[in-house]
Amino acid sequence: MNMEFNELAALYKNELLNNVLPFWLNNSVDREYGGYYTCLTREGKVFDTDKFVWLQGREVWMFSMLYNKLEKKEEWLECAIQGGEFLKKHGHDGNYNWYFSLTREGVPIVEPYNIFSYTFACMAFGQLSLATGNQEYAEIAKKTFDIILSRINNPKGKWNKAHQGTRNLKSFSLPMILCNLSLEIEHLLDENTLKETIENCIHEVMDVFYRPELGIVLENVTIDNQLSDTFEGRVLNPGHAIEAMWFIMDLGVRLNRPGLIEKARDIALKMVKYGWDEKYGGIFYFMDRKGYPPQQLEWDQKLWWVHVETLITLIKAYQLTGCKESLRWFNIIHEYTWTHFKDPENGEWFGYLNRQGEVLLSLKGGKWKGCFHVPRALYQCWKTLEFCSEKE
Amino acid sequence: MNMEFNELAALYKNELLNNVLPFWLNNSVDREYGGYYTCLTREGKVFDTDKFVWLQGREVWMFSMLYNKLEKKEEWLECAIQGGEFLKKHGHDGNYNWYFSLTREGVPIVEPYNIFSYTFACMAFGQLSLATGNQEYAEIAKKTFDIILSRINNPKGKWNKAHQGTRNLKSFSLPMILCNLSLEIEHLLDENTLKETIENCIHEVMDVFYRPELGIVLENVTIDNQLSDTFEGRVLNPGHAIEAMWFIMDLGVRLNRPGLIEKARDIALKMVKYGWDEKYGGIFYFMDRKGYPPQQLEWDQKLWWVHVETLITLIKAYQLTGCKESLRWFNIIHEYTWTHFKDPENGEWFGYLNRQGEVLLSLKGGKWKGCFHVPRALYQCWKTLEFCSEKE
Repeated sequence: MNMEFNELAALYKNELLNNVLPFWLNNSVDREYGGYYTCLTREGKVFDTDKFVWLQGREVWMFSMLYNKLEKKEEWLECAIQGGEFLKKHGHDGNYNWYFSLTREGVPIVEPYNIFSYTFACMAFGQLSLATGNQEYAEIAKKTFDIILSRINNPKGKWNKAHQGTRNLKSFSLPMILCNLSLEIEHLLDENTLKETIENCIHEVMDVFYRPELGIVLENVTIDNQLSDTFEGRVLNPGHAIEAMWFIMDLGVRLNRPGLIEKARDIALKMVKYGWDEKYGGIFYFMDRKGYPPQQLEWDQKLWWVHVETLITLIKAYQLTGCKESLRWFNIIHEYTWTHFKDPENGEWFGYLNRQGEVLLSLKGGKWKGCFHVPRALYQCWKTLEFCSEKE
Repeated sequence: MNMEFNELAALYKNELLNNVLPFWLNNSVDREYGGYYTCLTREGKVFDTDKFVWLQGREVWMFSMLYNKLEKKEEWLECAIQGGEFLKKHGHDGNYNWYFSLTREGVPIVEPYNIFSYTFACMAFGQLSLATGNQEYAEIAKKTFDIILSRINNPKGKWNKAHQGTRNLKSFSLPMILCNLSLEIEHLLDENTLKETIENCIHEVMDVFYRPELGIVLENVTIDNQLSDTFEGRVLNPGHAIEAMWFIMDLGVRLNRPGLIEKARDIALKMVKYGWDEKYGGIFYFMDRKGYPPQQLEWDQKLWWVHVETLITLIKAYQLTGCKESLRWFNIIHEYTWTHFKDPENGEWFGYLNRQGEVLLSLKGGKWKGCFHVPRALYQCWKTLEFCSEKE
């Protein structure tokens, strides 16, 4: 490799602390109404003031996590608390049903149709309760988690447009996110709930959505765990699958199961190679497992989160198993990511490239991109690379 | 221009009769269960058997219309009737609430959340009733039309995810489609309903969604007809706006209002120029009226329907007003469309190109592309060009 682990660690650390975090601290905090702006231009100018609960929760989480794990910086804690207060006051309907989006002032715009508004709120208040010791935040996280579990079999609720009984599919996203969320709020769960949730999610991800006969991870299967030869049953999201594998590796570490870690590494490597665009480089956003045209018109685009999550997975795979092939692919994805997504002129990274690797949308934040994947990946890679460097 | 009107007319006629219609007649008819396959590969092979009610209705309409207006071909009538029978039996819930999609066999998959499943079913049974004289088909069209009118203020019904009272927006699509649908089922409406619907739609399209202060047509405005500086309020869909202008021109002819036709022509020309991609050619799919990043990741793609609808609008504008600028732009769009969307090797045309004009998805039909825009445009352009040629 071109750089030593300690140089790489320093690169990721510097990018996090001196480029990415300042971008969000300087541009995203709404000092009048609280919460965060996330629709930010390339330079960091606010171009829309709507507040999306996914991204509000994720930014609360990010600054709480950094305060808890990296440094007790007052600026980070204040940034997290003001966002948490905004969410506590405006983010839900009074019963911890989390809206999808709010006006700048906090008035609901879109109803609580999306289960991931709940998961990211839960993650936010879990970390914020650790950062502050505030029991109210812990209660919000716990109550929200209970609602998520109660909705696990019909996460869309009354907004579900599927006709009952014809084609009952289940999605990879929720068990995948719960792999991560269960460890995030471990301190709030009783032992049985934690154990049951974890075992159930590992089973769903590794035995149901991962299909050994195909060697790939699916996005949707039937509720009785069968393949579905439909658009939903054929679609693949390599970035999703790869991201899930570092959640599984974290669980493998927590549960001390080397076999699980190795299986996750093998699946991740398979999905990286499957998703890699031989022609232009980068990992495709969506694919069809039978090679048919996917429904998603954006299928060939290169998205920031896919690539930075892949970096986390590959470097963890190397750290935990010493796998050279993982390190080789880490270097390939590192090269692609830093030369294509990093903005040489302003803070934060680009999010959306076309297939050719050119910037498709110059925004640094929007409806789906906020203060989350880039800083989380920089933090995770930095710490993992540091570990690798110390082991040498 | 390079070709005379009579040569152009022959080109469009030949493409319709000898390339596009045979593709659908040969590949889309499900002779076992009835209805149509629409998910067809470049070569016409079925890659998915789901049946989308938009596209079922549109194909019934297409073959009925050709039978009614072009030639009394038994093959066309049979093709339309078998699709109409499938829709009559399986397309709705018994009360003419039209599902969004069905399995191959006709079992509902997705609930009747989408008002355009209703509009295209209505259009289908309107033409089919003319083709067959079957009163049952006429009744289905009439009942469906009544439901559409009753849902005009809340077309999404219980699937509306907008929180009531915060940001009430209305969409261009429905009044736009009603401009066309009202003439389609004119024979089934009483004079007052027809007149009222038409006047209301013309008003919405030309006085509400068209904004003289901006010179453009918006996709969404507030319910009290104001601009909204939000993602929804800023988004433009040039193809949509341009398509609506030929619906308006048809109404202008029907009502004998030359001023309305001229206004529609001017708006169309403005939107064609606004949407034209100076770098690669073609018309963008989505834009933001303030130049901010749009939410739609597919914003820069070049879609078949945008371009073929633009051809109809521009040639009608020339036919009806003699406007040289419309003819000049017709030639530009004609050139782009025929060199980029027509498949030199197989029937039907490509649907989805990337910004550069390369084929993004090689399918000939899918969830949203069926037997509709290409043959309708070829027919409309052929007949209009023929008229221009005879006038010369």
